[in-house]
Amino acid sequence: MTKTISLARGAPSLDIIDVEGLRDAAARAFANDPAGATAYGTAVGYLPLRRLIAGWHGVDESRVLITNGSMQADAFLFDDRAQPGTQVIVERPTYDRTLLALRQRGADVHAVALEEDGIDTAALEDLLTAGEVKPKLAHIIPNFQNPAGYTLSLAKRRRLLELAREHDFLIFEDDPYVALRFRGESLPTMLSLDEGGEHVVYASSFSKTLCPGIRVGYLVGPAELIARITKNATSTYISPGMVSAAITYEFCSSGALERSSARVRDALAERCGRLAQRLAEALPQARFTAPDGGYFLWLGLGEDVDSTRLTAAAAEHGVAVVDGEDFMADGHSHAIRLSFAPVTAAEIDEAVPRLAAALASLR
Amino acid sequence: MTKTISLARGAPSLDIIDVEGLRDAAARAFANDPAGATAYGTAVGYLPLRRLIAGWHGVDESRVLITNGSMQADAFLFDDRAQPGTQVIVERPTYDRTLLALRQRGADVHAVALEEDGIDTAALEDLLTAGEVKPKLAHIIPNFQNPAGYTLSLAKRRRLLELAREHDFLIFEDDPYVALRFRGESLPTMLSLDEGGEHVVYASSFSKTLCPGIRVGYLVGPAELIARITKNATSTYISPGMVSAAITYEFCSSGALERSSARVRDALAERCGRLAQRLAEALPQARFTAPDGGYFLWLGLGEDVDSTRLTAAAAEHGVAVVDGEDFMADGHSHAIRLSFAPVTAAEIDEAVPRLAAALASLR
Repeated sequence: MTKTISLARGAPSLDIIDVEGLRDAAARAFANDPAGATAYGTAVGYLPLRRLIAGWHGVDESRVLITNGSMQADAFLFDDRAQPGTQVIVERPTYDRTLLALRQRGADVHAVALEEDGIDTAALEDLLTAGEVKPKLAHIIPNFQNPAGYTLSLAKRRRLLELAREHDFLIFEDDPYVALRFRGESLPTMLSLDEGGEHVVYASSFSKTLCPGIRVGYLVGPAELIARITKNATSTYISPGMVSAAITYEFCSSGALERSSARVRDALAERCGRLAQRLAEALPQARFTAPDGGYFLWLGLGEDVDSTRLTAAAAEHGVAVVDGEDFMADGHSHAIRLSFAPVTAAEIDEAVPRLAAALASLR
Repeated sequence: MTKTISLARGAPSLDIIDVEGLRDAAARAFANDPAGATAYGTAVGYLPLRRLIAGWHGVDESRVLITNGSMQADAFLFDDRAQPGTQVIVERPTYDRTLLALRQRGADVHAVALEEDGIDTAALEDLLTAGEVKPKLAHIIPNFQNPAGYTLSLAKRRRLLELAREHDFLIFEDDPYVALRFRGESLPTMLSLDEGGEHVVYASSFSKTLCPGIRVGYLVGPAELIARITKNATSTYISPGMVSAAITYEFCSSGALERSSARVRDALAERCGRLAQRLAEALPQARFTAPDGGYFLWLGLGEDVDSTRLTAAAAEHGVAVVDGEDFMADGHSHAIRLSFAPVTAAEIDEAVPRLAAALASLR
């Protein structure tokens, strides 16, 4: 029995986690601020980390809320902004857990096609000007999108902000992968481009730069929105993890974050390059654009390929992938998502021929 | 300006937190299980800690869910069991955040008087047999209740279970203070007395034995309820804190938990004794029963004393207390809650005369 190689999970392999850096940060957290790390604190989160994040984004601290991972930030935001029937724009494809969270709340989800330079803003404009859709929220993953790996261009970032102002909706800029660019120039966040500070709520996370198990994420948004969400957070759990946030703060303020992020980016660049090379060799019929960062490569297959059947066949051949249909608001897809974060280059060398064999087995 | 002494917050002072033990536990967590501590894990929480908790309660692991503090466990439980209009029994007085969480969900809250040996089970029986109230849930804080400090007797624990079986409701045994008994014999949990395992859901926390900032709590309940809540937890935040739970696990499995709990109990016993002594001296007209554990003493005042006015006067005299009305479903009270957890004996010596002066100022 061959051991399954997972190209499924959006999570890093242990060898690119700075475990020693985390251990040292924990020791410093308890030494430097025992009172702050061990007490309840308040729902806005550990204050030194909040201040640091506010500084990164050049916003007032009152606009920042730390949460137990950024999914929890999403949940609070959706509790506030996505009531039953609320119209919400999403990308097609988009993160499956976002679709689930919106549907659980009864939101009316409208999917707009994702292109290689981001959401199709012309199609979105048509939808908005036709007047049939009046969204309160547009969920956008701007960098190295999950699942497609695509990045929103600067021109489209500006266009989205114009549309948000004209049609009075909030852009939810969901940006967990921003620090994982291994090629090309970084683009400004829509948060930073939004001059009035009223049309963007931004989320990010330390899952990809420290480790997922730390469960520290955050939200930056209009002050009154953050104040309402803080109230909900208080009654949900009093305060998010203070020990985990104090460890995160020490990790960031010691320079370990830069070192760790660089190591992660180097590894991801190598893995992505290897995956693209092997796919080009073994599956010449598949279409993909190798991403400039992040975890994911979106593998487009022919119209004759059923992604659900391919996913099942891949599992039988010892490679786990995610069915593209999971990321589609309407469930229709001819693509699969491959994550190069949890595997070494050597594992990629083994996995791709298995995937090619799985595809061949469908014919 | 005198510095305010807080008898308000249900939180321990830093001197009774085992900061070194926490630091050492963190170092061991990263050394012993780097993969488990740093990865996402699943919504049931860090598996070694889950196994440990299951062992403590003598239940199958499938009945245990770890959460980011026990308030988050409450929130998940109420999401599942307290829909708009759902009838829920609470104690009178009870924890203010529980009342708020139930009301936010539109639950129909029925408060039953709390006596010195726990909820008035005869009054509850009358309410149930009259047929006007058919609760789905009864929220009970069995040990050193918040705010009253009272403990539910063994006889009443058994009676509550009989009523739960007869009238088909779930007892929510909310037990964060159980490890803080500094006098008398421990009583069995209702969870352990519930032979079928179908009528009790139990919550507890490490906030009072490790530290609040760790934000690790847990729920033990019927397997199918835990499975439903796990699904909700997955879509809310993927998984609770793994780093914090791994630190908690190492703290517990090294013997630090017993040492830390003993130190906390000794300090609380001293503080409670001192508070009772000073109150008896300075406020002979007040009524109270010193608790056998926990954080709180419930100070009953005459019918002529307005607890809201007294709370305000106390603040003016430099001592923070909590108005008893905050803990009443119907808002009516002649009592205040005093917490002896955040103060040293010397601070108690200063605080009680201030409280006496505040009371005198109302006349």
